[in-house]
Amino acid sequence: MPILRQEPLRGEWVIIATERARRPETFASPEKKVKTPPPAKVDSCPFCMGNEHMTPPEVLAYREGSAQPNTPGWSLRIIPNKFPALEPSENGGEPFVCHYFESCPGYGVHEVIIETPDHNRHTADLKENELVLVLKSFKERLLSLSGDRRLKYVQIFRNHLREAGASIEHPHWQLLALPFIPPLLEAEYRRSREYYQEKGRCLLCDLLEQEVSAAERIVLENEAFVAYVPFAAPLPFTTWIVPREHTASLESSADDWAEKLAPILKGFLVKLSQKLQDPPYNLYLHLAPLRSEQLPYYHWHIEIIPKLTIVAGLEMATGTFINVSKPEEAAGFLRER
Amino acid sequence: MPILRQEPLRGEWVIIATERARRPETFASPEKKVKTPPPAKVDSCPFCMGNEHMTPPEVLAYREGSAQPNTPGWSLRIIPNKFPALEPSENGGEPFVCHYFESCPGYGVHEVIIETPDHNRHTADLKENELVLVLKSFKERLLSLSGDRRLKYVQIFRNHLREAGASIEHPHWQLLALPFIPPLLEAEYRRSREYYQEKGRCLLCDLLEQEVSAAERIVLENEAFVAYVPFAAPLPFTTWIVPREHTASLESSADDWAEKLAPILKGFLVKLSQKLQDPPYNLYLHLAPLRSEQLPYYHWHIEIIPKLTIVAGLEMATGTFINVSKPEEAAGFLRER
Repeated sequence: MPILRQEPLRGEWVIIATERARRPETFASPEKKVKTPPPAKVDSCPFCMGNEHMTPPEVLAYREGSAQPNTPGWSLRIIPNKFPALEPSENGGEPFVCHYFESCPGYGVHEVIIETPDHNRHTADLKENELVLVLKSFKERLLSLSGDRRLKYVQIFRNHLREAGASIEHPHWQLLALPFIPPLLEAEYRRSREYYQEKGRCLLCDLLEQEVSAAERIVLENEAFVAYVPFAAPLPFTTWIVPREHTASLESSADDWAEKLAPILKGFLVKLSQKLQDPPYNLYLHLAPLRSEQLPYYHWHIEIIPKLTIVAGLEMATGTFINVSKPEEAAGFLRER
Repeated sequence: MPILRQEPLRGEWVIIATERARRPETFASPEKKVKTPPPAKVDSCPFCMGNEHMTPPEVLAYREGSAQPNTPGWSLRIIPNKFPALEPSENGGEPFVCHYFESCPGYGVHEVIIETPDHNRHTADLKENELVLVLKSFKERLLSLSGDRRLKYVQIFRNHLREAGASIEHPHWQLLALPFIPPLLEAEYRRSREYYQEKGRCLLCDLLEQEVSAAERIVLENEAFVAYVPFAAPLPFTTWIVPREHTASLESSADDWAEKLAPILKGFLVKLSQKLQDPPYNLYLHLAPLRSEQLPYYHWHIEIIPKLTIVAGLEMATGTFINVSKPEEAAGFLRER
């Protein structure tokens, strides 16, 4: 008989299929890897080293030595998106309000985080110290953007490969600062707040404790972070990376959070790539709202969703998922050497 | 500058792209139509006429004359799914309760509605009177399933083509009766109830009135139903079909609802197929909970989401969508002959 589980943070229901469950190894897609990987540098790529003039001026970059902005020599570079989904405007600092049936100016900030000058090295391929810089750049941008009180939430995410929505081949993350709290985050905040009001504890702190004590869905862990396939994972190999210590957002994280997170994030992405033949994935951070980094009830984390199945009508209609991979089996498969 | 709009029924935000907007005709995919269409009957297909023994016994069928159940001669046939996502159980009538971190038996009902004996005729190809029977079968099943008080909501949906999640080629709809209210419906009920408490009116009644008076996003209409691309459509060509009269679910619909809906639903699907070269789509009904067909604040409707773009990290992380097609242009394109 199939199994029902509820995901407490968002309230989603998940049907863990039994009749049509698939073994973990069947999700690997070996045939697509025949194509030759791209070269380390592509002359026409605006994100490659030496092509800095092809992008808008950078908002942040990490360089050794004294090179000028918008010149080569960087290891990480953050630029405004040339075709932004949202744009800053000049019209003062009024709070953003948008009524039903109103078309409001798309106020916001849309940036691209070019995580490496190399066209062919993705997050899993970065050295740990390179990944630390990527993670630290997120916090720098959050701190900077929090000064604009019209912005309410910053979504940082990564689409890996074209099948997961990456329209530019060069490895990159995106950052979108929004003038509203988006609905999925609002649901997490609301449910976490209600839990806190009732129990006096953080919901994700409690969920993490359960996962750590159950142990069977953990993929990787160290003293500061745990990567696991959650009990009610909606899709095959959905994985969360959660800080052990209660922390609402990056701004309030311990000084060494990036150094501690990098080996877990890289380690997980390497396992995913090796075990499932570099599948496309979507990866995103869920953080507290801007300027709310001390919230006692919200706990930031990363969610990684490999794109291995088609999300169809039932999921779109209801927010209820049929997972054809048992979370315990997916975690066990990723864990084994 | 991009435009922000909020969808009132679920609270989703939509960014209507301007810089990267695409003309409506660019969403058509002519090259995939080279493949030859399947034949009208496939010997190995369990849904084709004459293969009734290959499926579980039918729960409902429409036949002319006096043919026996589970024999040929039907025009529509509803069967339990052979690989059900949820299953009825024998253990009495206790209400369904499932706590966090509990794996609960997947109680429910999963049926397949074989809308035609013909392997190669999809919903857009049915005659209006055939489609009327399909629609009427939904109501029959709802009335029958409402007798089981453990079931809370019935999701009726259709995945068109493999790219939209159809794993069986033969045209069919699916019905999943759930022992809980799924989260997206819960959000619609909550927001509609709050609106009703504040304004004393049904939210979707008001939205429909706005759409009808704006007119520019309407694709098709008759005296009972309106098909339109909503003001804050999250994805290109997302279309809703809404009854003009306030009705919470099919059980409380006017006697001739199916006869009135069939020409609008067929008309829309024919337009979609002709204008965009038979794209894959997900189609679903949003109804009041079972046994709540008199709700004053909820208004049932159909949502159709053609699968034309990749839903990526931003959408999955936030429930905020970037629509690269302007709803007014999409509607205008579908409307024109």
